[in-house]
Amino acid sequence: MLSVVMISTGEEVLYGDITDTNAAWLSAQLFEQGFAMTRRVTVGDNYEALAKEIEMCSLSADIVIVNGGLGPTSDDLTAASAAMAANVGLEQSNAWVDEMTAKYKQVGRVMPAANLKQAMLPEGAELIDNPVGTACGFMMQLNRAWLFFTPGVPSEFKVMVNDQILPRLKTMFNVTNSKVCHRLYTYGLSESGISDLFQSLTLPETCSLGYRSSLPFIEIKLFAPQDDCQVPILLGNMIELLGDNIVGEGCDLLNTIANLLTDDATLVLSEQSSGGFAVNWLQDVSSLSARLVVSEVMADSIDEQACVEELSTLIALRAQRLHLHAPATYTLTTGPSLTEGGFMLGLSTPDGCWCQQLMFKRQYNNYNRRWIISTVLFDMLRRHLQGKDVFGCYESLDRVASEHL
Amino acid sequence: MLSVVMISTGEEVLYGDITDTNAAWLSAQLFEQGFAMTRRVTVGDNYEALAKEIEMCSLSADIVIVNGGLGPTSDDLTAASAAMAANVGLEQSNAWVDEMTAKYKQVGRVMPAANLKQAMLPEGAELIDNPVGTACGFMMQLNRAWLFFTPGVPSEFKVMVNDQILPRLKTMFNVTNSKVCHRLYTYGLSESGISDLFQSLTLPETCSLGYRSSLPFIEIKLFAPQDDCQVPILLGNMIELLGDNIVGEGCDLLNTIANLLTDDATLVLSEQSSGGFAVNWLQDVSSLSARLVVSEVMADSIDEQACVEELSTLIALRAQRLHLHAPATYTLTTGPSLTEGGFMLGLSTPDGCWCQQLMFKRQYNNYNRRWIISTVLFDMLRRHLQGKDVFGCYESLDRVASEHL
Repeated sequence: MLSVVMISTGEEVLYGDITDTNAAWLSAQLFEQGFAMTRRVTVGDNYEALAKEIEMCSLSADIVIVNGGLGPTSDDLTAASAAMAANVGLEQSNAWVDEMTAKYKQVGRVMPAANLKQAMLPEGAELIDNPVGTACGFMMQLNRAWLFFTPGVPSEFKVMVNDQILPRLKTMFNVTNSKVCHRLYTYGLSESGISDLFQSLTLPETCSLGYRSSLPFIEIKLFAPQDDCQVPILLGNMIELLGDNIVGEGCDLLNTIANLLTDDATLVLSEQSSGGFAVNWLQDVSSLSARLVVSEVMADSIDEQACVEELSTLIALRAQRLHLHAPATYTLTTGPSLTEGGFMLGLSTPDGCWCQQLMFKRQYNNYNRRWIISTVLFDMLRRHLQGKDVFGCYESLDRVASEHL
Repeated sequence: MLSVVMISTGEEVLYGDITDTNAAWLSAQLFEQGFAMTRRVTVGDNYEALAKEIEMCSLSADIVIVNGGLGPTSDDLTAASAAMAANVGLEQSNAWVDEMTAKYKQVGRVMPAANLKQAMLPEGAELIDNPVGTACGFMMQLNRAWLFFTPGVPSEFKVMVNDQILPRLKTMFNVTNSKVCHRLYTYGLSESGISDLFQSLTLPETCSLGYRSSLPFIEIKLFAPQDDCQVPILLGNMIELLGDNIVGEGCDLLNTIANLLTDDATLVLSEQSSGGFAVNWLQDVSSLSARLVVSEVMADSIDEQACVEELSTLIALRAQRLHLHAPATYTLTTGPSLTEGGFMLGLSTPDGCWCQQLMFKRQYNNYNRRWIISTVLFDMLRRHLQGKDVFGCYESLDRVASEHL
């Protein structure tokens, strides 16, 4: 198996002040192309430490992707470190000087002298074009490894990896097991619950499964060879096993809802225990937020005595009142918080009204509580739109009561 | 200088599926205690790769903190890897078996056999107590380094580092430059803007500055020796230079507002361009959300003709209407989105009403736009409560118009 290492540079990443989103993105891209990342190293802006790291990695890895430190300032040291590791000097790439000069000219400016530093590459290195910035990449062979040097700015990094580095890697290493990733988004099952369900699945050797839990959802990734004729059957089996806990195939819950709504459907939200989480979340999908007529957030006060009859009356009254003010196709409601982690939800549609009272089985912080409440609220609408039972089964929640009016 | 390395384990961290929050937390803790992290390595759940990593690090580092892989399942391999690296066997810690048995007994359960694995430590390793879980830590010396093995669960990791590991490190390495971190939260200045402002500052050699930008805020961290008499003067100078762009000293904007509000103050929010971001954000601070009387989110539609007169009329009308329905001390309003990245904000107080129309100088995605709009909205209230000019200076925004009614 190929050994693929990523070296990230920079104090901000080392100290965890910023998340290394490039690393997450790169490992996913590499995996889909048949290269699995084996190791990741992060070092600060230290010339010698980085040189040593590059040298060490070049001895044991086949592919090394170095990210960051190609800027024009004095703490951008990657090219110098690479030269030190390879025991060569730096030389100016006139091609890149011309390129930068042209880029500055295009925006009516003269290139600052500081940028010349960005054209200084280790002797013998091959330039890698950066069509969207002044930090060019470069590649060189050292010991066992091919080293690729890339800029830290995510947009520049991504273009360079996609357009320049991955095609080269595929040619150089003749990797034939590039894969397609099929995604299923689920809500309501735990990771171990899903893996229990999948025990009956026979996974072909060419396929692999990955999970990514981003509370409250679990995204299931099936990596499979392109055009593999077993995949449609396998995916079909997975979908059958997961049942109505699938909130989206290839897209998330809110986008699934957006795709299901008819053109003229409108929404009204009335939130209490979810505290505005639902309406704010809705704004992430513009085709949903465009359907919002109005939304209200009422102060939340723990209601100690709510029972299901009161609940349904409350939800019905609120939907009625809202309907008078701002008629909409669907009204989604979260009621007051109840004692012991309870909450109530209502969905009012042209076909009737559904209410339920649920309870958390474990403790969550306030933010996650609002997120989960909003998730179940939207899941009621998704289920209704798909003609499924509006009251789903959720591993982490108990249903205390439910009513269909 | 001491060489301090962290090794994180686990496919989820390696592939970037989850953020390594332990790393960020640890590097901050170590730094405050006078140990700067020099390098961080992430490897997957691979027995031999981890053993090799541990061995390599033990040759060049003084302190190695290994995180994760101490659980009871088959992919938890850290203890075995440590034993392999040190070329010793594993032996059962009877003390830890007793401890786990007692923990299970306390919750009325019998310890599953799988947990016995968690008491298998490399020969000669010293056990490190985990008061909050079944994964004990351990420490051992190998080559140049002291190795510390810690559980991946953040709550367990933090207790172990704080209560067990940091005190040992301080004794073992006699580090005397432990530091206190003073935090200032700012909004409206860029990092380079702040660093320009700070050019006149003389930073004593014992102090250092750190920035952490978490859009839209920049947190400024001053690391200084405990009881350093120069610090109050230095901090005072920093505060003077940053002026009213400081949204909080030691706490963030919303907590600053929460601390400034009088006991009987209440809030009403009416949102349009911010799409519910403000009300949802407010819920993170319970002493603020408790003051919320009601909130509304109206559909946003780009208004092409708004001018400041209409703006002030609109804000005033909305505040009036809301005041009739739900009287509150402060009403905060965001108006419709305007062409070319404009937005309008209103603050209505017992002392008068302020409105302003601002424009983004650069493009942001929808989420960040809502965040920034909400930030400026709350900043108006913060400024009013502190007796400062309600209309602040923000580097990334242009003020198109403003009015005080």
